[in-house]
This record gives sequence, C-alpha cells and structure tokens, in this order.
Amino acid sequence: MSDSHTHTPASQSFIKAHGTENDFVVLLDPQARFELTDDVVRALADRRAGIGGDGVIRVATAKTLIEQGVLRALPADCREDEWFMDYRNADGSIAEMCGNGVRVFAHVLVAEGLVELDDAGTFGIGTRAGRKEVTVHESTERHAVVSVQMGGPEVMGLSTVQVADERFAGLAVDMGNPHLAAVVPQLTADALNELPIDQPVTWDPEFFPQGVNLEVVTPLDSHGAVHMRVHERGVGETRSCGTGTVAAAVAALADSGAVTGTVLVNVPGGQVEVTVSEGTSVLKGPSEIVARGTLVS
Amino acid sequence: MSDSHTHTPASQSFIKAHGTENDFVVLLDPQARFELTDDVVRALADRRAGIGGDGVIRVATAKTLIEQGVLRALPADCREDEWFMDYRNADGSIAEMCGNGVRVFAHVLVAEGLVELDDAGTFGIGTRAGRKEVTVHESTERHAVVSVQMGGPEVMGLSTVQVADERFAGLAVDMGNPHLAAVVPQLTADALNELPIDQPVTWDPEFFPQGVNLEVVTPLDSHGAVHMRVHERGVGETRSCGTGTVAAAVAALADSGAVTGTVLVNVPGGQVEVTVSEGTSVLKGPSEIVARGTLVS
Repeated sequence: MSDSHTHTPASQSFIKAHGTENDFVVLLDPQARFELTDDVVRALADRRAGIGGDGVIRVATAKTLIEQGVLRALPADCREDEWFMDYRNADGSIAEMCGNGVRVFAHVLVAEGLVELDDAGTFGIGTRAGRKEVTVHESTERHAVVSVQMGGPEVMGLSTVQVADERFAGLAVDMGNPHLAAVVPQLTADALNELPIDQPVTWDPEFFPQGVNLEVVTPLDSHGAVHMRVHERGVGETRSCGTGTVAAAVAALADSGAVTGTVLVNVPGGQVEVTVSEGTSVLKGPSEIVARGTLVS
Repeated sequence: MSDSHTHTPASQSFIKAHGTENDFVVLLDPQARFELTDDVVRALADRRAGIGGDGVIRVATAKTLIEQGVLRALPADCREDEWFMDYRNADGSIAEMCGNGVRVFAHVLVAEGLVELDDAGTFGIGTRAGRKEVTVHESTERHAVVSVQMGGPEVMGLSTVQVADERFAGLAVDMGNPHLAAVVPQLTADALNELPIDQPVTWDPEFFPQGVNLEVVTPLDSHGAVHMRVHERGVGETRSCGTGTVAAAVAALADSGAVTGTVLVNVPGGQVEVTVSEGTSVLKGPSEIVARGTLVS
C-alpha cells in the first residue's frame, strides 16, 4: 500500500551535476513525494547555505506528478509512464525547458538505471514544453554525451542590444524564448573575453517586449566553430545557455551565408555541437555527475 | 595490513556544511589517503563544475597526516591521536585556521560519532595554528552550536580604510591576521546595508603591510548586540568571518568604554556570540550540515 503523504527531506537522495557548467541539484523522487515548495527550491539552490545550483530538477514520472498535484495535465505529446523533468529555477520559479538540464536529466536516468537504452540510445523525456527525444551517445557514472531535439529556431529579423558602451547588432531568434545573437566581424576569442558582457543590458522594448537573451559570437571559423558569451534575461552573464547556443549557431550560419549546418559552439563552460536543419535543431553536449548523496534535515 | 597508497576519489565521502554561511566541503578521510592536490581542491570548491565551497576541509588525525606527508610536523600543542582540521581555501592554498570552519569541523566529528563527548562537550582539535579547544553545546544531525577558543586579540592602534567614497576610521586588531574594525557612530543596521562594503578597499600600507580585513560595525545596542559587514583581504565582501567578528566585538566594546565582555555579532550569514576576556576570546555560533554523499569520479 503506498503512502500518499509527502515525506520530509531526511531520506531524500540527490545528484549534483552540470552541463557545460550550468549546474543542477537533481532530486531522485520517483513517487513525487518530496514537497518541493519555492522556499525548499531556494534553500537547495543557495550556494552557501544549501547545496547550490542554477536550478533544481526532480526526477519523477508524469503520472505521479499529476497524481501528487504537481502537474495539472500532461503537456503536449508527453507520456504518463515516461520520466518527466520537473524543473525549477534557483529562485523557485518554474522553467518549461532547459537545454543543458535535459542532458543532465537523461544522464542521471541512465546512471541510475531508470531507463533501458536501445541500440540507438534514444528515449523520450517529458518537459513542460512538451516531450523531448534525447539520445545518449556515451555514458559512465561520471560523464555522458547527450543530444536533444531543441525545436525549430524562428528568425524574427534584425535588432540591436546595448551592453555598457558597446552596441551589438544581430539576428533576433525565437527559441521559445527571445534571443539576439550578434556575430561580430573579425572578433577573436581573446577579444570576446574582453567585452563587457557581464554589464547591464538595454534593448528595444518594442522588438523584445519580454526582454532578451544576448549572445555575442565570433564568426564561423574554418573548423565550423564559434566562441560565444551569453547574457541571460534576468540573470546576467552565465557559463552556458542551451537555447542561446542554438541561436548563436543560426546567426553564425546566416553570417556565412548558410541556413542549415552543424556548428561547434564554445561557451565559457565548455563546448556543445548544434545542428540546424529545416524546422528543427539538435543540441549535443556533455553532462558531468559530480556527487551523489542525501539531504540532511 | 593497511594500504599506504592514496586512493581515487570514487569512494570518497563528503559532507556539505556551513557556519553562518561560510561553507565547506568536508572530506571524511581518516586515513589521509585522498590525494588533495591544489587542482582537486579547486575542482571540489568550484561552485558550478564541482560541489562548491569557500574551503575544503579534510578530517584526519594528525598522526596519519604526518605519515602521509601532508603535515611535516605536529603544530604547537597538537596531539597525534586527535582529529586535525586539514583546511584549504577554495583556491587550493592552505589556511592555518578558520573560526567558522572549526565549528563545522567539530559538528562533523560529533555527527559522525568520531569523538565521544564528556559532560561539558569539550574536546581538542588540531589546526595549523595550534590546538584549539571546542565545546559542542548542542548537536543534531543537521544543527549544532559550538564554541571555540580564538586566542587573544591584540589592539595595534587606530587607522583608516577607504572603500569607494567612504572613509572608515577604526581600531586595528591583530587576530593572527590583520583587521580594521570601524564602529560608525549612529550607524543603523539598515544604513549599514547601504554602504559600499563590496567595493575595492584601500588602506595605509605602512600600517597594514600585509593588507587588511575591514569590519564596519554598528555601535553596541542596549541588548549587547552589533551588526557588521566584512570585506576580507583578497576575497571581497563575505557573509561571515570568524576572526572579524572577534575584532568587531573588541572595537564595539572599546567604543562603549569596555575592554572585556560578551557581544552578539550579527553578520549577513547569521549571528555569533563573542566573549572577550583578558588575553583570550571565545567565538560561539552555529553549524549546519546540509548534505552528505560521495564524490563521483
């Protein structure tokens, strides 16, 4: 007989992991019994008084999340019996999707033996932005390489964003969230490191009524690679941003006269590979499991 | 037969804990077999790619640390068979002592059953700054209250420190490390929060040849309490600084015409109680264990 009460955090297992240094506290809570209030999320994500992370991800099935009242209904295409990425930002708010988090989530499922891989290593994960297909290319206890379908980038036109004294002109790309990806002619990786991307950002509020994520990008080199830095909406500069790497790849391809193709995107937190096709994109990158443990309450 | 080799981090247990939000990765390594290189310390203390902490503390006995070549000799008054706080800063460098870290260390020893408490709850801990007597007043798996002997503060005179546009005059106090503790007349806790303590600091290099830690402190109130913010040498503003709270208590007492006494010191990360006596001081404060686990390699 199952106990429908939420339990105290005393026995709650967690994994600390990151994807290109976008880091997460992953709670192994298959029955969705852990009471994940905003306050609990903030306490867990606190980097000094808690474990610390950019986000907190619960591992549970869609079915149990609905039964426990965490999800009201099944998001588009999601399956009741598949694992669902119950994702919260560090401030306790819900995020529908996280391109780096979903790689970590897939890695944890494999490392914990919660999914059986077919020969292709492909399976489905539920998210509030709908079902995502992931492919686990390699996986150990510590390290994995995972691809995820990121959907079709929509190019909205041209705009500019101002950071400190620098003005960046670029391609506005909608990835479900708004981006301005600015490829700067002749910009080198070293010069990129000197730019004031960590300063406050201003944008055209008519063009970006919901604010904007800014990617500053070097031109595509002869190896098909770019370097980028990213300023995330409401956060500031970060080590990596999944949707931002896709926007950067779209802009770098456009800058070189292409609409589709594969781009290696170097971010401060590591490297990912973005493949842009007609109406879709795939983000391939690493996941690192750093530690596993239990919360103490 | 014991194995004298250092082992891989695969099976290494750790505890994540903090004292007034000065946080640590505590490695349970009684045989001192874990190879704690500077690179390993930096990787563990990295807040995104690692577990994250202001410091890394190994739990081992002085005897095994000497056998494994981590310590060259026994520091003053330390005992071979007592637990030794092998403390590293987040950058891999060695710190001799940490007033918040030693409370956490004592809490971990009790929570792990590594010491047996007498009725007073008092026992000795080895540190590179010599043997420290601690008293564990209360302790659960999660929370403890611990006192530690911090030695005698030495008042060196008066000086000033400049932060942004503000100039602070205060008492120079040597706690083994240099402090300027500035009690600002009529300063309220709210007004303290508005001060630019997080900005770069300049000081009199003849008076403070090794740099200085700055504490800005409200005057002692009718409950014997002060608020302080601290700018640590080489680090910037922090949530708490053990030796700094003692310097602040000495300055607040002096400001009220006293040389000895007990002061409640409110820091951004919580509250501690400092008792200043003739030639010695005691720091009493909390420790919180947040999580326990194993490293994944």
